[in-house]
Amino acid sequence: MPRISASHDKDLNLVQLGTAVRARRAGQGLSQEALADAAEIDRSHMGKIERGERNVTFLNIARIAKALQCKPSDLLLDAGL
Amino acid sequence: MPRISASHDKDLNLVQLGTAVRARRAGQGLSQEALADAAEIDRSHMGKIERGERNVTFLNIARIAKALQCKPSDLLLDAGL
Repeated sequence: MPRISASHDKDLNLVQLGTAVRARRAGQGLSQEALADAAEIDRSHMGKIERGERNVTFLNIARIAKALQCKPSDLLLDAGL
Repeated sequence: MPRISASHDKDLNLVQLGTAVRARRAGQGLSQEALADAAEIDRSHMGKIERGERNVTFLNIARIAKALQCKPSDLLLDAGL
């Protein structure tokens, strides 16, 4: 059954961005669940973002950055994007 | 009637990002329509992105950046985000 929500199956850019989020999170000793809660993002959705399985919106990038105490551009720069 | 698509009414971050897109586009002498076509984004949607009226997805940020021959992080840095 097709999904209505914005999504994308393993776009390389999304994988790079998700990997950068995961690396910064792990570097701060945060669990994925703790980051999801701090960013007010559904835990299941956060997992998909980290795996590059969802076309994350800018506002969610901003929420994740705030929870990681960095700027949205820092996450993109980490990802080489 | 409620919209199903991801949207946000004039979040400041989205306004800053849209303003940065508009400035870079204008600096290249491109019309909004030309950028929309180059980025393969609906023209109406592009207008809303530039006005900060839509929660733009990362893949659309990446498409816009590619059409403007810059990196997604450049757009965020322009916007101070």
